[in-house]
Amino acid sequence: MQELGTRARAAQRLLAKADSGTKRAALGTIADALLAAQDGILAANALDLDAARTNGMTDSLLDRLTLTPERIAGMVQGVRDVASEDDPVGHVRWGAVRPNGLRIEKITVPLGVVGVIFEARPNVCSDAAALCLMAGNACILRGGKEAIHANTAIADTMRAALTASGLPADCVQLITDTSRQSATDLMHAVGLIDVLIPRGGAGLIRAVVENARVPVIETGAGNCHIYVDAGADIDMAANIVYNAKTSRPSVCNAAESLLVHKEIAATALPVIAAKLAQKNVELRGDAATCALLPAAKPATEDDWGTEYGDYIMSVKIVDNIDEAIAHIAHYSTHHSEAIVTQDYARAEQFLAEVDSAAVYVNASTRFTDGGEFGFGAEIGISTQKLHARGPLGLGNLVSEKYVIRGSGQVRC
Amino acid sequence: MQELGTRARAAQRLLAKADSGTKRAALGTIADALLAAQDGILAANALDLDAARTNGMTDSLLDRLTLTPERIAGMVQGVRDVASEDDPVGHVRWGAVRPNGLRIEKITVPLGVVGVIFEARPNVCSDAAALCLMAGNACILRGGKEAIHANTAIADTMRAALTASGLPADCVQLITDTSRQSATDLMHAVGLIDVLIPRGGAGLIRAVVENARVPVIETGAGNCHIYVDAGADIDMAANIVYNAKTSRPSVCNAAESLLVHKEIAATALPVIAAKLAQKNVELRGDAATCALLPAAKPATEDDWGTEYGDYIMSVKIVDNIDEAIAHIAHYSTHHSEAIVTQDYARAEQFLAEVDSAAVYVNASTRFTDGGEFGFGAEIGISTQKLHARGPLGLGNLVSEKYVIRGSGQVRC
Repeated sequence: MQELGTRARAAQRLLAKADSGTKRAALGTIADALLAAQDGILAANALDLDAARTNGMTDSLLDRLTLTPERIAGMVQGVRDVASEDDPVGHVRWGAVRPNGLRIEKITVPLGVVGVIFEARPNVCSDAAALCLMAGNACILRGGKEAIHANTAIADTMRAALTASGLPADCVQLITDTSRQSATDLMHAVGLIDVLIPRGGAGLIRAVVENARVPVIETGAGNCHIYVDAGADIDMAANIVYNAKTSRPSVCNAAESLLVHKEIAATALPVIAAKLAQKNVELRGDAATCALLPAAKPATEDDWGTEYGDYIMSVKIVDNIDEAIAHIAHYSTHHSEAIVTQDYARAEQFLAEVDSAAVYVNASTRFTDGGEFGFGAEIGISTQKLHARGPLGLGNLVSEKYVIRGSGQVRC
Repeated sequence: MQELGTRARAAQRLLAKADSGTKRAALGTIADALLAAQDGILAANALDLDAARTNGMTDSLLDRLTLTPERIAGMVQGVRDVASEDDPVGHVRWGAVRPNGLRIEKITVPLGVVGVIFEARPNVCSDAAALCLMAGNACILRGGKEAIHANTAIADTMRAALTASGLPADCVQLITDTSRQSATDLMHAVGLIDVLIPRGGAGLIRAVVENARVPVIETGAGNCHIYVDAGADIDMAANIVYNAKTSRPSVCNAAESLLVHKEIAATALPVIAAKLAQKNVELRGDAATCALLPAAKPATEDDWGTEYGDYIMSVKIVDNIDEAIAHIAHYSTHHSEAIVTQDYARAEQFLAEVDSAAVYVNASTRFTDGGEFGFGAEIGISTQKLHARGPLGLGNLVSEKYVIRGSGQVRC
């Protein structure tokens, strides 16, 4: 780790001097190289898939591990898209001339060395590396052992392309030791890693938060709620809940929990449930919900705090918006929450009082996404309060520094 | 800790609804109350000082622990100053109407519950609490055991003033158990504390970085460098070095290490050393320095990485600016560094390549300070890359959230 980190630091110093054009050109070369290396990457991925099947990996994990020509084309396009975004480095965010004549500017600079720890999704390799590179950061990637062959093929391809572009290969490094110790070493690399970003499920994120000594940006966990207010447009509510739950249940901005005002529950819940039944969504409700919806199963305390990532939704009938907001404050992961309402004051109350990265009125939680917000590619959705909240795009992969020009000033 | 954190969270929800006027009025009441409670606070401080003298506390620590009517007046004025600053909550930092009609705004919101862990300086109690309150944050304060009586008197006074202002007393809580375990509990309070800010020396900061599981803003450690370039104005260099080293050696923006270009060393070093001799600064130099300055002691490897906080300075002669920048990259805590030069290209190179929170040309490092930058009161100087770097003022004690207004949009 010491050696890896030292090499990353040295490479980053050179990368930091590269102008936007050089970075864009290098990303173009990386994209071309990934496309040219497609056969080798697919062959490496086949080795991973063989091992995964032998080890009895579940279908949904196998799906995430699998690369195809189409998925590699998507990775390549992702790198090209990042290359076409604004360079986030070198923006002057604030400036002043002080009474003593000091000229102060606050400018954006790269974060430095970014660690990315992820699971068995080889596309994260190129997605994360491209974002880091464009923001002037060296990255140290540590993926799941299930994807080690594909990750190695992808990282080697990117490193060779960096060299061909005149940038240090060590701007992108993959930790090929996939032992638990290597993950711990990365989390403890104080002074070597400026920021560590976990990209994966709740278990990975919890492990990183509990063990990391380097600064972490927490991403991803999404126990998202939709509250259907008294007097809501029931068809709109059913559409939004259906979209938020079923359009892609495995992602973090999918809704997991439905709260319904007691005054509208008897009319709204059957309509919403009928819509969700089109996708065989299992409902787990409190007693009042189960009384209205015979097909619903009783929810346990655990259900309220669970991110199912599946065609399951918890349902609770609440007395009023305050109970809904209190429930969300207690159980939410503070990712994305929505209210469906026609009432102006309650819409504004929900926006003001719900403390999550994204809070919606009359829209699906599924919009919490860098692309949908117009930011381009993202490295995850931050659910912490520090640094950045919501979609983490290129503009969040920078730090800042103060640059001060004087003429001999000393402090009294 | 669970109970403390739960109370803080509940109090913060109410504080978050308070408008600027309410917060300003509460701070005014706190200031008045601290002034009115002066005798009691001084009496409590006398108990702390008695115990500290019995335990053989050093003079410089005793000085930091001591309160006087003048220092309490300073604390009171500090609270009033914070009350007169801009409210950092509710600023719209970005907004867009997306093609699908979604109206997105990114607005500043309080961080939530802020933990502040500090040493035997009771003034930190009111400084930190005032900044947290104005930014809508509840705070949990954990000061050194040496100041427990004064801290308790100050916190009790502030809590009573909060109640009198109609805000929850639990917006400010002091951990009165000063065992090591209580500090550990605070550092592990995932979900209860949104951000933990250590305010103190290098040992405290290291302990927090190594043990905290909650997000931390690292502050304070300052191994600051001044590089005197070939061709520099020698009088300017001597003035800047003298100011940066001796105007207040114990603070984090004081310079600790002097780097001098070999071409100017023979002429500049004797002038700088004579100036520093006015304050009996001990110089610890590399071999070349010791050859030029017979009074200098030989520096050890440890000297290059040490924040003395005292009238001591390490001195090294370098071959060129690249060696100076590399030395800084290796040994600096990335707080503040300065170049003294007449050369335009090298000035710009230093500003671009030195990766510290504040980088100066021809000015003293002592300017890295919220007041000097025009930001008002600060809770510390951040030396990390995440969230904020440099002076941490009110404007940095907030997070942000996305507020999205729709009309039934769902994602395709």
